[in-house]
Amino acid sequence: MFCTSESYVEKIEAFLENLPWNKDTMGQSMRYSLMGGGKRIRPVLALAAADAVGGEADQILPAACALELIHTYSLIHDDLPAMDNDDYRRGRLANHKVFGEGKAILAGDGLLTYAFELIARPLPVPAERQLRVIREVAQAAGPEGMVLGQVLDLEAEGKILNLEEIERIHRHKTGAMLVVSARMGGILGGGTAEQIDALTRYAQALGLAFQIKDDILDIEGDSATLGKPIRSDLAQEKSTYPSLLGLAGAKEQLAAKVKEAHEALAVFNYPVDFLHSLADYIADRKH
Amino acid sequence: MFCTSESYVEKIEAFLENLPWNKDTMGQSMRYSLMGGGKRIRPVLALAAADAVGGEADQILPAACALELIHTYSLIHDDLPAMDNDDYRRGRLANHKVFGEGKAILAGDGLLTYAFELIARPLPVPAERQLRVIREVAQAAGPEGMVLGQVLDLEAEGKILNLEEIERIHRHKTGAMLVVSARMGGILGGGTAEQIDALTRYAQALGLAFQIKDDILDIEGDSATLGKPIRSDLAQEKSTYPSLLGLAGAKEQLAAKVKEAHEALAVFNYPVDFLHSLADYIADRKH
Repeated sequence: MFCTSESYVEKIEAFLENLPWNKDTMGQSMRYSLMGGGKRIRPVLALAAADAVGGEADQILPAACALELIHTYSLIHDDLPAMDNDDYRRGRLANHKVFGEGKAILAGDGLLTYAFELIARPLPVPAERQLRVIREVAQAAGPEGMVLGQVLDLEAEGKILNLEEIERIHRHKTGAMLVVSARMGGILGGGTAEQIDALTRYAQALGLAFQIKDDILDIEGDSATLGKPIRSDLAQEKSTYPSLLGLAGAKEQLAAKVKEAHEALAVFNYPVDFLHSLADYIADRKH
Repeated sequence: MFCTSESYVEKIEAFLENLPWNKDTMGQSMRYSLMGGGKRIRPVLALAAADAVGGEADQILPAACALELIHTYSLIHDDLPAMDNDDYRRGRLANHKVFGEGKAILAGDGLLTYAFELIARPLPVPAERQLRVIREVAQAAGPEGMVLGQVLDLEAEGKILNLEEIERIHRHKTGAMLVVSARMGGILGGGTAEQIDALTRYAQALGLAFQIKDDILDIEGDSATLGKPIRSDLAQEKSTYPSLLGLAGAKEQLAAKVKEAHEALAVFNYPVDFLHSLADYIADRKH
């Protein structure tokens, strides 16, 4: 069944709101960051991918929401003084500024761990598919995926990178989780190998488009809309798509990636309007 | 098939040695802490529990070794300046003293994530059992288990605790993972509900015995054998079993827990000599 973005996001928000965490420090801290106004792109992608292969998005909601917990954990740890040392996230104080460093580390640990509990919950799909998804999510989030991306990012500080090195960081730091989000929906939804492959290419293009747009927004965006200061890449002398390709070149590259994303969707018989519109949204967004 | 402790540990060491991690910073850092001389009690417990219920310990080796990765991640994060701020672990520099805080946080994140990849690897057991084990491990390690124990521990600093409060911390911080280690073997090995219940009671008693012995060693132990300074609990004015029950009272409590562990094993038909000897080892160990 085809859903609109709003209905996906509504279901995700309701599920996350109702996680049965205690009202103690731990629960408060995890909830503070989880309900901090994210766009929920990863779970939305998983739900839309399940629909795209003819599965039932509703059936995989806990697993899809686990992706948002993993994303949130990565932001909490990323903001720590020992990492990017950011005091603000999405216009609010970072977790460690509210709860302290020790508890922020633990909130991240808790979210990451709880995510696997969610993905392993009984679903009306064959258990083997769930195990495959757990392996793929762990690979995408782990020391050969997102965590490696963070390490590469730490090691790149103060260095001038070329395009290949930048893409390697993005592919690990953000790309791998976007790709596995789409694949989760495809696998749990019972997609064919060809469909899962198409979802992979779609999400790879989407991930790079997202990153290029982020770099462009850092130059052209409005800091109030973004919820963070602009020109921070410039101030930190970070290598970005615009710094390597020029602003016009970066925009061309963005358009090319969005086109790739659209083209990857050609194999689907089910309506994939939403996935098309998500690719356009990534390119047109203001924050 | 019944194995000796040595053969369990040998298999675990060989498996951990051969994890296919890159030689980059990330791989080095994870390996540094993982191969830092742990006793491997959690995976040993899982393998022995599988044998106890008539399963095949060899078949579940990757899942059992995942428990050691989770344990290692918890030690790396626990030693961080924002947490217990320990510079040494098992007589060697703590991970963050060698690789820096940022990468130590990431090494912990990487180990925790990779652990779930290991538990989800195809095993010759029904996939539903593996999903159940993943849920139980995530619960034991997560925000209602070990992570909560760490939070309680942080919040207890500088406070005088009573016995109930101390046991609550231990039950979460170390007990939950020991219990789930035994349960993993029981569940994956195809144990009955009664057997899994017996393993649970065994591991609960073992966990408390372990902790009481730790507290006693901090008073009576030899710092060279322990690989850490003694009387640190006293210096930090930490509430411990001996501080609440006296040294003689703590030793009585230790003996009672070891007895409980032995008694829980009465239900098994397969040889459980090793589990009996593990309970005795916990009480008699010098480090």
